[in-house]
Amino acid sequence: MTSEFDRAIAVTEITESSREPSVSDISPRSAVSYDAAIAPGWDILGNANGGYLMALAARAITEATGRPDCFTITAHYLAPCPPSPVRIDVRPVRSGRRFGTATASMFLVDHAEVPAVREREPGREPGREALRVLATLGDLSTDPGGPTSMSGTRPEITPWDECPVVSDTSINSFAFIHDRLATRIDPRDSGFREGKPSGTGTMRGWFAFKDDRPIDSTALLLAADAFPPPAFNLDLPTNWVPTLELTVHVRAVPAPGPVACFFRTRFVQNGLLEADGEIWDTSGVLVAQSRQLALAPRE
Amino acid sequence: MTSEFDRAIAVTEITESSREPSVSDISPRSAVSYDAAIAPGWDILGNANGGYLMALAARAITEATGRPDCFTITAHYLAPCPPSPVRIDVRPVRSGRRFGTATASMFLVDHAEVPAVREREPGREPGREALRVLATLGDLSTDPGGPTSMSGTRPEITPWDECPVVSDTSINSFAFIHDRLATRIDPRDSGFREGKPSGTGTMRGWFAFKDDRPIDSTALLLAADAFPPPAFNLDLPTNWVPTLELTVHVRAVPAPGPVACFFRTRFVQNGLLEADGEIWDTSGVLVAQSRQLALAPRE
Repeated sequence: MTSEFDRAIAVTEITESSREPSVSDISPRSAVSYDAAIAPGWDILGNANGGYLMALAARAITEATGRPDCFTITAHYLAPCPPSPVRIDVRPVRSGRRFGTATASMFLVDHAEVPAVREREPGREPGREALRVLATLGDLSTDPGGPTSMSGTRPEITPWDECPVVSDTSINSFAFIHDRLATRIDPRDSGFREGKPSGTGTMRGWFAFKDDRPIDSTALLLAADAFPPPAFNLDLPTNWVPTLELTVHVRAVPAPGPVACFFRTRFVQNGLLEADGEIWDTSGVLVAQSRQLALAPRE
Repeated sequence: MTSEFDRAIAVTEITESSREPSVSDISPRSAVSYDAAIAPGWDILGNANGGYLMALAARAITEATGRPDCFTITAHYLAPCPPSPVRIDVRPVRSGRRFGTATASMFLVDHAEVPAVREREPGREPGREALRVLATLGDLSTDPGGPTSMSGTRPEITPWDECPVVSDTSINSFAFIHDRLATRIDPRDSGFREGKPSGTGTMRGWFAFKDDRPIDSTALLLAADAFPPPAFNLDLPTNWVPTLELTVHVRAVPAPGPVACFFRTRFVQNGLLEADGEIWDTSGVLVAQSRQLALAPRE
């Protein structure tokens, strides 16, 4: 019954019985630690997708804080992530009535070390830290809300039925993550694979799961990085675009159905670029905004 | 000789002699701690400006890491900040050849406690944490750079000479920070103070220091939050717009002279809004981008 995505972001708290108590455990700042794994199949040429990694860390943070929705979450990407067991340490920063803030660190764990890291020696960290996250969370279903005043509108997109399924396109020959997804790409933005970038710096499409899992606030973090870089539709090589940092603002839980995704890169300057994202649900609600800083692709 | 801004973001490392060594000091993850102060005069109605607080934390991070420029920095605002002594703990996350990543925590310190916090009891934190920061730093002057491909251009702005000085306007009656600055506001965006919001959700202007301090990467963090919220130019009350999170990408060190600043809020939805910023130097280089998530103002 569990969806493929939920299995891929599952986390298991490392319980008291599996580790020795230490001085730091009595501090309110002590970490809650989770065993998890970077699952195969959520990758681009062998390295896990940045949105997937953010969603995996977010799942640990929502478990640790008891707050279901990241209102704003920032991840700094510290190392490429092949499929691997990981340990995620979540540390509370602040717990308020409406919002809570926490950090998460994701460590790549050597397969051979898995039993040892459960002992959590104070000061000793397992393997290499691959992701550091800072997030402020709340509960969108009970949030008090407030005024609405929209001066922007949803960008135009080719209808769902007229967009090719990404896993049927040549994009799937490097972005294997799309095998898990029912993502569709606006045909105006897919020519880069045939050496015909649009020149607009845009990448538009529809995001959904192949197994119809509902798109909640955690899935939106995946959606925020699930499309090819919009820089591929500029006059740049279609090569790796390493993300330094990704921030996502979740603005609402989407209505049922796929979400429309709009990504754009406007400023590639001295080897650095931004990619801005907007995600809208089928009822016309802005459900997320994203921005990342990345290195421009090179030959 | 030292500029007012440099005095306001000065940090002093808490040296070994002023504290007892602890177990955590031998860890590569141990904090480097700084004494500092939230200076008076960088506030809006008594609470320190969010960009100023980010710059103060960034100064501690650049000192601790030896890297001069935040390429991407995110701050989560945890409490209002009146003028106060603070302690800033910087913890390294990763140190690579080109980039380093670190966190900073800023604690408000009771005046009475200042000598005591220097002792840094393990696990005991002074006062309330008011700011948590996550940043990736490098050196823009030696960065290897890479391709440039700009599909966006600098927005249009009223020339410097034709923009009123903010400290001469009624904006200064609540945003006291402008007494330190030579900021100018585009006259098309200043009508909100007379109850005539433009309706565009924009706030444009020029940023400079009153004492002509050069605008470096740290000053850009201040500039990213130095103007009135662009939401004041929508149909919303001109009341406090509490920032939950601010992220700034520094893309280049500005050429000499003021920088042109463009802020825009497009989506005020259910009490949450974003404010996006672009900062350009006089030579036409994009020097920074910013985005914040804030609570919409209420009556």
